[in-house]
Amino acid sequence: MLDTVKDMYNAEKQVLRALPRMAKAAASEELRQSLEKHRKETEEQIKRLESVFEMMGKAVRGKTCEAIQGLIEEGKEIIEEYADSDALDAGLVAANQAIEHYEISRYGSLRTWAEQLGMKKAAQLFEKSLQEEKKTDELLTRLAEQQANRMAA
Amino acid sequence: MLDTVKDMYNAEKQVLRALPRMAKAAASEELRQSLEKHRKETEEQIKRLESVFEMMGKAVRGKTCEAIQGLIEEGKEIIEEYADSDALDAGLVAANQAIEHYEISRYGSLRTWAEQLGMKKAAQLFEKSLQEEKKTDELLTRLAEQQANRMAA
Repeated sequence: MLDTVKDMYNAEKQVLRALPRMAKAAASEELRQSLEKHRKETEEQIKRLESVFEMMGKAVRGKTCEAIQGLIEEGKEIIEEYADSDALDAGLVAANQAIEHYEISRYGSLRTWAEQLGMKKAAQLFEKSLQEEKKTDELLTRLAEQQANRMAA
Repeated sequence: MLDTVKDMYNAEKQVLRALPRMAKAAASEELRQSLEKHRKETEEQIKRLESVFEMMGKAVRGKTCEAIQGLIEEGKEIIEEYADSDALDAGLVAANQAIEHYEISRYGSLRTWAEQLGMKKAAQLFEKSLQEEKKTDELLTRLAEQQANRMAA
């Protein structure tokens, strides 16, 4: 479990750094606002992970998460390739949803393991972050569908 | 959309190659069987992607998906590090769920884009794969919880 907490701590910090650039690139105001909202949630999620390190009596230290590094890199490529294109926001939404889903799978595993280890408080913190990530993913799905409807109209 | 179809075509082929090794490493018979079942589904998902290439009038050609490469690499490390440990199956389930969630996000985006482009048949194929991936993820969650209960007992 500690390995995965370290992985997520680094992952969330990478996401925190990447979100402002993605928000700035977004063409629609709605997408910009939802990425900005997610940046604030990410700050809270980082604090929750810090609490878990403390509960485990371990130093707060991340471990490079290559999966998120790759997904963020993909987001950067989308910004460069699709700048000034109608597909930019669609690509940004997709890149962010891939990031959300990585986090959903990790927080889900962490919650199950924390329960297994009898760490109730940690399980609750992971559950909270898990629900936030799921909501963000649903919001992004709605944005993608709205955009699809607008373009079809 | 074509970029993402190429990405997924390569991703599914990587998963198809990785699954037998993961199934062989699994300690529990249930996990081994569910990975074997997923291997068969993956073969069908690859065929669906080939149909979409055809519908788009494009050559069937993948494009290295680095995200899946990283996630499969993580799976390999778990097999090496946790061999003969109680945590092996928990780690394998987590690695597979990260892979499932990557695919869920990609098939979700592809379905939305296919609808947007008026490609109904392609949208249906993506939806089918999306539902299979979601079911596999739920099955893995149940396996993780059962294991957690057994260990707590």
